[in-house]
Amino acid sequence: MPDVQGLPDERGVALDEVGIEGLRYPMLIADGQGVKRETVATVDMSVSVGAEVKGAHLSRFVEVLHAWRDQLDQASALSLAEDVRNRLGSSSARVQMSFAYFVERQAPVTGARSFSEYQCTLSVGASDKGTSFLLKVRVPVTSVCPCSKAISDRGAHNQRGYVTIEVEPEPGAQIWFDELIDVAEASGSSPVYALLKRPDERHVTMAGYDNPVFVEDMARHVAVVLRSDVRVTRFRVRVINEESIHNHAAYAQLGWTATTDHRDV
Amino acid sequence: MPDVQGLPDERGVALDEVGIEGLRYPMLIADGQGVKRETVATVDMSVSVGAEVKGAHLSRFVEVLHAWRDQLDQASALSLAEDVRNRLGSSSARVQMSFAYFVERQAPVTGARSFSEYQCTLSVGASDKGTSFLLKVRVPVTSVCPCSKAISDRGAHNQRGYVTIEVEPEPGAQIWFDELIDVAEASGSSPVYALLKRPDERHVTMAGYDNPVFVEDMARHVAVVLRSDVRVTRFRVRVINEESIHNHAAYAQLGWTATTDHRDV
Amino acid sequence: MPDVQGLPDERGVALDEVGIEGLRYPMLIADGQGVKRETVATVDMSVSVGAEVKGAHLSRFVEVLHAWRDQLDQASALSLAEDVRNRLGSSSARVQMSFAYFVERQAPVTGARSFSEYQCTLSVGASDKGTSFLLKVRVPVTSVCPCSKAISDRGAHNQRGYVTIEVEPEPGAQIWFDELIDVAEASGSSPVYALLKRPDERHVTMAGYDNPVFVEDMARHVAVVLRSDVRVTRFRVRVINEESIHNHAAYAQLGWTATTDHRDV
Amino acid sequence: MPDVQGLPDERGVALDEVGIEGLRYPMLIADGQGVKRETVATVDMSVSVGAEVKGAHLSRFVEVLHAWRDQLDQASALSLAEDVRNRLGSSSARVQMSFAYFVERQAPVTGARSFSEYQCTLSVGASDKGTSFLLKVRVPVTSVCPCSKAISDRGAHNQRGYVTIEVEPEPGAQIWFDELIDVAEASGSSPVYALLKRPDERHVTMAGYDNPVFVEDMARHVAVVLRSDVRVTRFRVRVINEESIHNHAAYAQLGWTATTDHRDV
Repeated sequence: MPDVQGLPDERGVALDEVGIEGLRYPMLIADGQGVKRETVATVDMSVSVGAEVKGAHLSRFVEVLHAWRDQLDQASALSLAEDVRNRLGSSSARVQMSFAYFVERQAPVTGARSFSEYQCTLSVGASDKGTSFLLKVRVPVTSVCPCSKAISDRGAHNQRGYVTIEVEPEPGAQIWFDELIDVAEASGSSPVYALLKRPDERHVTMAGYDNPVFVEDMARHVAVVLRSDVRVTRFRVRVINEESIHNHAAYAQLGWTATTDHRDV
Repeated sequence: MPDVQGLPDERGVALDEVGIEGLRYPMLIADGQGVKRETVATVDMSVSVGAEVKGAHLSRFVEVLHAWRDQLDQASALSLAEDVRNRLGSSSARVQMSFAYFVERQAPVTGARSFSEYQCTLSVGASDKGTSFLLKVRVPVTSVCPCSKAISDRGAHNQRGYVTIEVEPEPGAQIWFDELIDVAEASGSSPVYALLKRPDERHVTMAGYDNPVFVEDMARHVAVVLRSDVRVTRFRVRVINEESIHNHAAYAQLGWTATTDHRDV
Repeated sequence: MPDVQGLPDERGVALDEVGIEGLRYPMLIADGQGVKRETVATVDMSVSVGAEVKGAHLSRFVEVLHAWRDQLDQASALSLAEDVRNRLGSSSARVQMSFAYFVERQAPVTGARSFSEYQCTLSVGASDKGTSFLLKVRVPVTSVCPCSKAISDRGAHNQRGYVTIEVEPEPGAQIWFDELIDVAEASGSSPVYALLKRPDERHVTMAGYDNPVFVEDMARHVAVVLRSDVRVTRFRVRVINEESIHNHAAYAQLGWTATTDHRDV
Repeated sequence: MPDVQGLPDERGVALDEVGIEGLRYPMLIADGQGVKRETVATVDMSVSVGAEVKGAHLSRFVEVLHAWRDQLDQASALSLAEDVRNRLGSSSARVQMSFAYFVERQAPVTGARSFSEYQCTLSVGASDKGTSFLLKVRVPVTSVCPCSKAISDRGAHNQRGYVTIEVEPEPGAQIWFDELIDVAEASGSSPVYALLKRPDERHVTMAGYDNPVFVEDMARHVAVVLRSDVRVTRFRVRVINEESIHNHAAYAQLGWTATTDHRDV
């Protein structure tokens, strides 16, 4: 059978990424306590393709993913990327997996238990120059508007917001989703919960009203925490508020890369 | 060239709807003031297919839509459905168009002008038994939670909500989107706006705080108005709140059909 | 603390459904072989609310779901709905859970193993009049166009399609997702797979070309199978093709309810 | 009334972008023939905020957009960004508008007319260092798989694909969406159409079968055309195929920036 993908190409155009996108797969992901949890991942996998090669053998991506699907943590994710690179015979490979990550929470007054969902993404790369590793979390919060509170005699508009943090740890440093979720939740006026009884709702309402924050404040809160964490090489934070008085969102974002002088701050 | 769709079928299965879905098309829609506005519609069109016929000629749907695209109002929408039925040679036809409908609004204190977007849908049908006509609007509002306000010493959680109303008017009755949008907006704690200056934000914050409503209250508000409108044959209302203290929504809905005794209420 | 939801309402409007929507929760679902699989469900839960009651206590929905989350099969789903009805003190309750359901498949020639994902939904209801139970699956297939093949000297356009089947089984009858997935996959020109090696791709290409089907054919295929299944009380099938020669979809659908004379057919 | 956003901030964190996201607005966009067409844009607008300032006055974004909404072309889009920067008193501003852009097409044999929709995005920036301008189009095509054709005795799997091109023109160079759409459409096995009669379907089926392309080929086709266009400073192309034999997509992408030696190629 002819190997069409293996044929030469003569247009002189190297491709940064060739791969598969949107594959939904059952994966076992380590949680913060070292336990594996089954979840549903949406997976993108790619390799670079040199100018002289016609294409990549896409079925090999799924073979490699299938082999690794039951053991995803920081170390094995890097091995997965390396494995993709070898099987596809490419100079670089990239794997990205997005999935729902659940943490059991207790309501602030009654202690009622429920699961909170956080959208998480793991991105790993492998190339001649080494590996790369990126964690991303998207965390829902409540935010109460400081301007609305200051200019009004009573009440203050508030809404659900989402704090998205991307972090590249120092090589070898241990950071997992749970820590980033905690940083994000602490930036809002209050966390959100799947289950709140009436005493909890009273607590959350007043705690939020007493702690109003703009999207700018939330982004800065996250930045201050992550800039002072020596395990962090690079981060990006984006906070959006699904404004309750508008039909559009407000947002703030910044990116940061560690340098000697930054770290001194 | 063979007409495969025109061949007979011997399985004895009639099809309720055969058609196209998700066609995006530029349309001119009448606004409430008799002016045509260009918008982008997402269009579904279908006909019923008898048990003895293999299939429908789908390209004819697009031909008919193309011919009618510059003049959509209540009357022409019904003619469009009738035209589809005739061109496809079917006993019944259905056309549904969803689009962004913009209304210029003024901020409540400063009068600053901006456009508010409402998702609207027009559904028309034609069959041996006559025509059908359905209007649907999805309207964003702010809602302040009565429970949170009552149990807290200060503040109250609030959020963006969406009021969706579907109405089948009496044959011949004139109802257009603008009226339904007004009913929906009046049901919330406050309308939302694309543009609010600070005096407007103060007004909206306090007006909302003074008028807290549950999703149940909003659905009932709409129901009371529409039940007493003699032009309404049937309606359905669904209100959802994108809860600011949860990462899920709360909702309430009901359907209603006019009967002699209902109308007396 | 005041119970605002428990207050009376005087507008005389009963609500069909009051509840929560879009809650994402980790659930253990029985697979076709009696094994529990963890997945991520998107959950809607509601009760009816009488005209005289102000509202429902929404936090109770999450409490009930949390208690049942690790044991979802046909019997326990009905108990869950009954439990919701009791906890909320309502005359009727409804629970709907949508989730990714994975089945391990083998490629048709090489036997290479991978997981196929099917979107599944379980809807259960409980009221004074008894319980209701509805299964729904959404199954991707390949479809080759019979018209394109017949009118062209070579080739034929083909595309991914989705067959969605909803079934209400007879009370007490055992039907689970796997059976419906098989019916849906058999209706297309070929199933789709996450992993195909070259000999498999050759097989799938030719098998599809030799078995061209319209959306009408796929819907009828499913209808013929389900109409003759005595365990089926009611079904609805909708097939859409994401047409490769258009930027919109083609679809066909029908609904069917068992009656004595239908069953004779 | 206090100006909370105007207060100082002491955390020492400058923000890259503060703004609004997802505002839907009616806009008049120039088409390739110098005519203004009304469409519905989804708009993001932002400014940078210095470390010493608490926040941005978000309502001003909407005021500026409202003033410019009826005249969007290359020149006015740059003026809009400059206007945002001035009104918000910031060192840099960015505006991004995504919208449906329609072009009337004729079917290849019968000449039947219909509109094709292309998702387009205009991104403009203004800062101390000058302006930036970026055009983006997303174009649906048909692609027939060369591997499937080569290894099969008959048929070949094909599917809808999307070619996304982002281009930064040389300062002052005139490039508009229509040209990029043409480049994208020429890269596939065949364009797609809203309306094809049977002779057109025959033509499209055979033309596609005679011109099979991988995602890699489409990306390279676009790259070869844009690399040799002296008006192009920088581009990125991403091609995805919604594979008809899989339930996931295949993709290829590359980015390119003009340098003296590249241009010689």
